[in-house]
This record gives sequence, structure tokens and C-alpha cells, in this order.
Amino acid sequence: MDEKPIKFGILGCADIARKVSRAIILSPNSTLYAIGSRSLDKAKKFAADNGFPPSAKIYGSYEAVLDDPDVDAVYLPLPTSLHVKWAVLAVEKKKHLLLEKPVALNVAEFDRIFEACEANGMQFMDATMWVHNPRTTKMKEFISDPQRFGQLKTLHSCFTNAPSGDFLKNDIRVKPDLDGLGVLGDAGWYCIRSALWAADYEMPKTVMALPGAVLNEAGVILGCGGFLLWEDGKTSTFHCSFLANMATDITAIGTKGTLHVHDFIIPQDEKIAPFSTISQTAFKPLFIGWDPLPEQHVVPVDIPQESYMVTEFSRLVKSIKEGSKPEKKWPIVTRKTQVIVDAIVESIRKGFVQVQIEA
Amino acid sequence: MDEKPIKFGILGCADIARKVSRAIILSPNSTLYAIGSRSLDKAKKFAADNGFPPSAKIYGSYEAVLDDPDVDAVYLPLPTSLHVKWAVLAVEKKKHLLLEKPVALNVAEFDRIFEACEANGMQFMDATMWVHNPRTTKMKEFISDPQRFGQLKTLHSCFTNAPSGDFLKNDIRVKPDLDGLGVLGDAGWYCIRSALWAADYEMPKTVMALPGAVLNEAGVILGCGGFLLWEDGKTSTFHCSFLANMATDITAIGTKGTLHVHDFIIPQDEKIAPFSTISQTAFKPLFIGWDPLPEQHVVPVDIPQESYMVTEFSRLVKSIKEGSKPEKKWPIVTRKTQVIVDAIVESIRKGFVQVQIEA
Repeated sequence: MDEKPIKFGILGCADIARKVSRAIILSPNSTLYAIGSRSLDKAKKFAADNGFPPSAKIYGSYEAVLDDPDVDAVYLPLPTSLHVKWAVLAVEKKKHLLLEKPVALNVAEFDRIFEACEANGMQFMDATMWVHNPRTTKMKEFISDPQRFGQLKTLHSCFTNAPSGDFLKNDIRVKPDLDGLGVLGDAGWYCIRSALWAADYEMPKTVMALPGAVLNEAGVILGCGGFLLWEDGKTSTFHCSFLANMATDITAIGTKGTLHVHDFIIPQDEKIAPFSTISQTAFKPLFIGWDPLPEQHVVPVDIPQESYMVTEFSRLVKSIKEGSKPEKKWPIVTRKTQVIVDAIVESIRKGFVQVQIEA
Repeated sequence: MDEKPIKFGILGCADIARKVSRAIILSPNSTLYAIGSRSLDKAKKFAADNGFPPSAKIYGSYEAVLDDPDVDAVYLPLPTSLHVKWAVLAVEKKKHLLLEKPVALNVAEFDRIFEACEANGMQFMDATMWVHNPRTTKMKEFISDPQRFGQLKTLHSCFTNAPSGDFLKNDIRVKPDLDGLGVLGDAGWYCIRSALWAADYEMPKTVMALPGAVLNEAGVILGCGGFLLWEDGKTSTFHCSFLANMATDITAIGTKGTLHVHDFIIPQDEKIAPFSTISQTAFKPLFIGWDPLPEQHVVPVDIPQESYMVTEFSRLVKSIKEGSKPEKKWPIVTRKTQVIVDAIVESIRKGFVQVQIEA
């Protein structure tokens, strides 16, 4: 059995690539192997600042990373508008692909990436970190429990965050030619994923953006709400914004239980991941107090949640190197998320109408 | 100065009247004086079971309570469809009115009550208990703070509760001829009030029910979501349901701060009222962890929140007896809540359209 770690090449020196570099270092089956930037100096500095080993390859272009035959996989954190070009090229060069979210500007773009992965037998995974946290597994156990949670009836999630400084003027996430989906792609992505996750990735039948979405002068979404309705009547609302203070909640309510988590995207403390649950709750006699009281859970997190993500990705890559097929679950949940993102955009564009999702 | 407590008469033996009887006992300026039921035996049993003093008047009709000249105020917890008749009669008989919510089947009905109170100089208050909890004052201080909270951007609230037994068949809250507003009047009322409360009772310009509302065969709402949009762009969503496990949350997000409370309607422990806040929050470098962490607040509650309500109501009644005018704040916030309730009903009836609220 091959015990060599999966060799990662990183395309570009994005801020988020620093976090993922650390995650690769802390992942037992993965190693930082190469970094490519359009500026060799930036690549050198990035490698020096982010714990790349002395043997790491430093390249002055993205192409050079893709042309290195020893690179097993690439992590691609470029602006979303560049994803199709570089993602397709990477998998054509037989690199497995860990792609930062939002994965594409729309599902048609994503399908080009997905099809290229399929055609080339490459593993795809988007970099939605929270789903890999051990807490997420524990929360899923709760909401899958017929006695403790029952059937999901409604879920609310939010990701609001008001970055300081000149974010609203200069960040790539407010630029139509870079990350044109704005806060919907950056933050709403997680909310939508949380609703799909709780619904066992069953697609809703109706999606609607809520009136009052805020767009900048270039048409990029800075804040919006969304609504999802499934065939069985369960619903989900979400709110994402660059204009409001931090909140990253999931409230999932089932017929028999309720789950709350307040830091589902990035734990407040990366080593401790809490959530709370309550089941079959009633008011006490005279409608005074509750019985039972909520139960607090704390899940220890041995390595950062993004290292769990990298480890799982590398495990799949290794399986493929040993003869397995790519795991299709990951591109499928990515595509479903993108379909909902697109439906929210369409709903906003058409005046907050209900958009039907094809089965 | 008159130190005599305000004398309450209660109309009917509803379950919730047991809680309010206890609240009157525990309220320092109020006393249980009379109970009336269509059944004298039920009234006797209610008085005996709920701590009425031996001197209390036990009547075999509602009229008899209203005809007792020593009754200062009535608490009226009858089914909503009976509110107009008995509320108007009570204030015409010069009884101040503490009226259980939902106050009426629609705002036209409420206006008859409101006008009768005005014409007769009687104090009106609806029995929305949570707004009288000392915690609510503390939470309001937080969301009014320009540094800690800033400007309200969005608020989500929920009140879900799946009562056991034959509730969905036999409770008055699922009967169109008794509490025709169903869960919207029973639980949604609190959610709508919370949004208005956070918005300093400024009315939204647009209200919409969210698709997927669940109605029983008689057309009574068992579960629904709602959306509110204000002129300045702030938004609110809520979800109320008889079909999902308990959740009673407010999440209020401002430009600079976030507030969470999980038991805003009835505290899990009536003597301790918690909430949490966080201000000017950012991710730590590398997007790992949060800084600062949320702050947990615990407000001691000396008497039950419903006793604070009764005490405030009796304070106003006493002021009127001493020559003051009725406090109009309370019927005004009641009316605003009812206007939103009506808009949600209209939106559902018309197929989940946006309903514009007149300024």
C-alpha cells in the first residue's frame, strides 16, 4: 500500500490559500508540494510565509504547476470568474481538483468543470469546510434520529459578516468581473448548502429570493434573503449579507426536535465545536418553564475542520490512484448548491418571483 | 395616595387564566377579586384551584362580573371570536381591559374594541407577556446602542410548538369559529411583535406570507412563515407552527452587533432570563475562530414575567383612577401587530403575494 502523501499544488496566493496551506500541513495524508503565482516573487513569499517545505516547487505561473507531473491535486482559490478556465485545464492535465466556492458563476459553467472531471477521471470537491467538521456528523446523527428529531419541518440559516476597511469598495467579492455572485456566492453558498444538507440533499421544488436584496452599483449582491420549499412542505429561509455583523446560525426544527448551532461555518474556537438540541419539548404546567431543557453538546475537533476536508479529499485521490472511481457525491452536492444559487439570482432578476426547480 | 390593589375579574376558566391568576397573586398592586363562568361550579372549582381569596366573588356568568361595581379591571381569555362582544361590553361597563392575544379576528374587530376603550376612558393592554420581562428591557438597551448593535438589518424569529394529544383535532386554536387565526394568532403574534419591537414599532412597508403555509380542512393556519420589509431595507422573517418541536428564538442582526435569545416567549427557567450578544465581530487571522467571542447575559427575574405585565397594567389603571389618561402606547402596538397578522392572512389568501402596508 502506497503511504506517500498526496502532493498539492496551489494556484495563486489568495488569503484563503493561507488557511488551506495550513490545513494541508496538518492533514496526515497530504503535503504542500507546489505554489504558482503570476508573480514568482509573490509565490516565493507565500511559500516562505505559509510553511511550505524547502523542497517545494515555486512557480511563476499557474500553467507551470499544472505541467508538473508530480502534482497530484490542485487547490484553486482564484476569483470565481477564472474558475472554468483553470479548473478545466487542471483536470485535463490530470490534476484532482479542490475548488474554492463559489465554484462557478452559474451551473452551466460548473457543468463544464464537472464534465471535464468526469472525462478525465479526476476527483472533484468544493472547499465547503464546515461539512467536514466532526460536529457536522454529530448534528446529522441528531437530525436523522426519528425519536430525537423526527421529520425536518423548517430550517433557518444565516451568514452575515461586515468586513472592515475598504471591503465594499475593493474586495473581489464585490466586483462583477471577479466574484459576480457577491455575498450570495460567498456566504449564501453556505446557507444553501446547510438547507440541502439537512434535507439529505433532496432538492426543493420552489426557490425565491426575498424582496429587499441589496445590490451595489455594478449589480453585485451585498445582502439578500432566500426561501426554499420542498415537495413535502418543509421550508427553509436564509439571510446572507456583507452589511450586518457576524451571525452564522443554523436552526433546524423537526417534528420532535430542535437543533441550534451558532458558528456552523467557522467555529468560534477551532478545537471545540458546540451545538445544542432539545427533543419532545413542552411547557411545564401553567405554561411556566420548559421540560426538558436543551442539551449542550461539545465535539472535540482534533485537527482544523479544513484539514478534515483535505484529508477526505486526499483519501479519495489515493483511492483513485489505487484503481477506484472518483466519488461523485461531492460534485453532485456542489451542483445542487449552484442550482439553488442560480435560482436565487433568477428570482432577484425577475422581481422576487418564485422559481421552480426541475426535478 | 390610594394603596388599594387593583381588583381583577376574570371572564372564563381558560387554561391560560390559571397562569394569569397566579400572576395577579404575585403582582404587588393587584388582587384576584372575581371569577365568572357560564358554569358556577366551574367558577367555584377554578377559584379554589387557583388561589382566589375566600372573599372572592364567584359568578355564574360573565355579565355578573361586569356588573360588579367593585371590579376595576377584567382579564379576558375567551376564544378570539368572542373578544369583540365581551371586550366592548366590559369597557362600556367601565372595566379596564387586559385582553388575551390574539386580540381579534382582524383589525376591524380590534378597532371596535379600541374605540370603545377610548370612548370610555379605559386602559387597554394585550396579554403579550414577554415584552414585560426585565430581559426585554436589557435586550432593547443592546439593540438601541449605536456602538454595540448599530442599525437593525434583519431579524428572524420563530415560535414552533407541537402540542401533544388531540390538540390538532380539538383545541380551540384549530377551530375556525373560535380562534380562526390558528397558529398565526397564537404563536405568529409573538414573532410579529418581536419584529415590531426591534424596529421601534415602525411599520414595515411590505408583508408577505411565505409559500407552503399549512392549513387544516377548515382553513385554519397550522404552520406558516412570514416576511416583512421596511422602507430603510431592513427585513424580518418568521416561522410559526403547531407541527414542529419547540423553538422560540429571536436573532437580531445589526450593522455592528448580533443578539440571540432562545426562549423569548416563555423563559426556560422563569427566574433566569438569558440572552447572548456579540459586537463588531471578525474572524481571527487565517479565518480561524472569532474575535471577540459572544457575551452571555443572565437577567434575574424577581416575579414571573406575566406578573410584571399585570403590575404595569395595574399601575396604569391606578393612574387613571387618580386622574391620568389611559396609556395609548399599548393599544397602538396591539393594533400594529394585528395589521401585520391581517396582512399575512391576506397574503396567504391571495396566493402568497406581497401586501403593501398603508403608512
